[in-house]
Amino acid sequence: MKQQKVAINGKRLRDTLESFANFGRTKNNGVTRLSLSEEDRAARDYFYACCRELGLTVKIDDMGNIYATLEGALDMPPIVIGSHLDSVKKGGRFDGILGVVAGLEVVRTLVENNMQLQLPITIVNFTNEEGARFEPSMMASGVLSGKFDKQIMMNNNDSDGITFEHALQKIGYAGEEVARLNNGTAFLELHIEQGPILEREALSIGVVECVVGMVFYEIEVSGESNHAGTTPMNMRKDALFAVNHLISEIREKLGALDKELVFTIGRINVFPNIHTVIPNKVVFSLEARHKDPAVIKQIEEIIQSLGRTSNNNGCTINKEKLWGRDTVWFDEEVCAHIEQAVKSLGYSYRRMVSGAGHDAQFISEMMPSAMVFVPSLNGKSHSEDELTTWEDCEKGVNVLLETVISLQAKHQ
Amino acid sequence: MKQQKVAINGKRLRDTLESFANFGRTKNNGVTRLSLSEEDRAARDYFYACCRELGLTVKIDDMGNIYATLEGALDMPPIVIGSHLDSVKKGGRFDGILGVVAGLEVVRTLVENNMQLQLPITIVNFTNEEGARFEPSMMASGVLSGKFDKQIMMNNNDSDGITFEHALQKIGYAGEEVARLNNGTAFLELHIEQGPILEREALSIGVVECVVGMVFYEIEVSGESNHAGTTPMNMRKDALFAVNHLISEIREKLGALDKELVFTIGRINVFPNIHTVIPNKVVFSLEARHKDPAVIKQIEEIIQSLGRTSNNNGCTINKEKLWGRDTVWFDEEVCAHIEQAVKSLGYSYRRMVSGAGHDAQFISEMMPSAMVFVPSLNGKSHSEDELTTWEDCEKGVNVLLETVISLQAKHQ
Repeated sequence: MKQQKVAINGKRLRDTLESFANFGRTKNNGVTRLSLSEEDRAARDYFYACCRELGLTVKIDDMGNIYATLEGALDMPPIVIGSHLDSVKKGGRFDGILGVVAGLEVVRTLVENNMQLQLPITIVNFTNEEGARFEPSMMASGVLSGKFDKQIMMNNNDSDGITFEHALQKIGYAGEEVARLNNGTAFLELHIEQGPILEREALSIGVVECVVGMVFYEIEVSGESNHAGTTPMNMRKDALFAVNHLISEIREKLGALDKELVFTIGRINVFPNIHTVIPNKVVFSLEARHKDPAVIKQIEEIIQSLGRTSNNNGCTINKEKLWGRDTVWFDEEVCAHIEQAVKSLGYSYRRMVSGAGHDAQFISEMMPSAMVFVPSLNGKSHSEDELTTWEDCEKGVNVLLETVISLQAKHQ
Repeated sequence: MKQQKVAINGKRLRDTLESFANFGRTKNNGVTRLSLSEEDRAARDYFYACCRELGLTVKIDDMGNIYATLEGALDMPPIVIGSHLDSVKKGGRFDGILGVVAGLEVVRTLVENNMQLQLPITIVNFTNEEGARFEPSMMASGVLSGKFDKQIMMNNNDSDGITFEHALQKIGYAGEEVARLNNGTAFLELHIEQGPILEREALSIGVVECVVGMVFYEIEVSGESNHAGTTPMNMRKDALFAVNHLISEIREKLGALDKELVFTIGRINVFPNIHTVIPNKVVFSLEARHKDPAVIKQIEEIIQSLGRTSNNNGCTINKEKLWGRDTVWFDEEVCAHIEQAVKSLGYSYRRMVSGAGHDAQFISEMMPSAMVFVPSLNGKSHSEDELTTWEDCEKGVNVLLETVISLQAKHQ
């Protein structure tokens, strides 16, 4: 007979998620909870209270990250579970918060079942993952991992000219550098997929192997403005028509590379953008993401060669790489623990990549890390329409619970 | 022996053009002389003074149009010569003003040579041709010809909320409706080409047969916004990529129609226009101009069929015709007089169309009309870089003078 598993409390998980959604709830049932805002402060206070009620030790570091720890029998680095409480403007009720509440629900389940822990468990809220109020995104995990400079971050302004440092002090969450997370046995981040793959494939769980590498270019095409009515077609240097050639070339060449490659032209600005004037300048963004560095290299070669074979209408083309990141691979052993947990629960799943950035990509430099995805309806996120079913949320947290139990068992 | 021709005074023409360029001269030697501005008032005052000095009868109508008449022996409708004194913001020193100063120089030449006139000659300045301060363009000639409603025009605001009527009164150029131009033997408008054809073909004069017809559409393509990193290519409804297909289709199909056809996509707005988000909406303008109504009809059929054969990426396409105009043909007899004048002067020339709108297109509904073009360097206009050589200006005015003499001779 199969052993009865310990399971999380789905109703309590839902109630807790609903409670957090009240901090910044929008008219359309989304959430605006910008980092270090009053709504963020209220959510932090509630999180703090929940942790204290559970008897956890709560610490706050100099970036405002909150750590709530349940001690284990061994003096070992903790298993860390978490994500972020902040949201974008008019964001959803699941992005970020699910990963923090998941930690709370796992610990509540362990405590109420009087389960003996070998390793401590730390629930974490990382400050300012979204970068919606203060750039950049993943600010605090970036500082922890040494990617970002603390002083530069402290001086970053929001659109009202308020510094991060000032806002952090104002909400009362400026702690001590000594409290920082600096190692761990494993880091687990549960997050909504923010894409359509799990839903389209009717799967409940994604075991995330990496955050894919990307390149981001800005391409500027310069031609000549003239009167739309008086300039014969063969005497034009139409920057927009040159760009149309380029986009066709981009689609043809990048589209042929690999089916997992995604590339996007999200921003185009046309000058002077008047219907009776031939455009003399068009500036557009091009970003592409793939897990394989060899594919990223091919992408960059294609971008560099753009326009060499096209009809550029007498226009000049300038390409500037604004930034890029290498693929961040998660820890295979942690992934294997997660996969085993999913299988033991009988949930449908797949291994997958994350096309979006997450705190886990920085934390993975400090400790073995991995992520779990649950389906996003229609792939929507950063939107009030963001939705993940309560059932899928519950499954995701049960996967975390099983993974924690399995990691603990390794240290029995 | 060939008879010595009367010719205009090139130096005087240049000096007068330079004097007018002082009213609103910009740092880069262009002109900002918005309709009914203080600069426009100063230019009008100077024009008025020049005409009075010549002994002309000056009248001002209810739209602020100025008419300066040299009487002839016969009580017949006048030969009318003119254009406009107003400019766009940071426009050039030739657009419009050349056609008014041409009238002045022709009359000055006739007067100083004591030439006996059968028909009166009227020099005209049409108010607000550019439409740069008060929409629409060609406002006053439009009211004269019955295309526009006077009361609606009077109530049109500039960007500061000042009405046309108020501005007209403020500069002291609100006259009487009874003074309006209502008929004429011929209307002649000398204008810079505003396109590159004469310069590229190394010709001095364009005999303009028509203002070409045009259609102006706005096309809206709607798809779905999703995260650029997490949405596989085959699950996207990328409105920009759909537009890429459409523009290729437009270029292929319209480009095959006729070599004289011009078409322009001058304005594109992408939403939300963020580099990490797949565009869910793109709105772009499409205008096309051609003299032949049969070609315009084909253009409209092509626009209506757009996207039927393309890969629209699951996007919807909406096409709206914002406006159109039929080709306005100028009077063939007046064109023949002009052509004969050019030939008698030995200037190089061609018959051509006007791709841009001009007051002559409205005045042609009231009297036999035609236009003369002189070359625009690099086809530039509505720009401080606008330039026509003094030599070409002089040739253009000599063509007007010869045409006037030839039209007068018809009535000997």
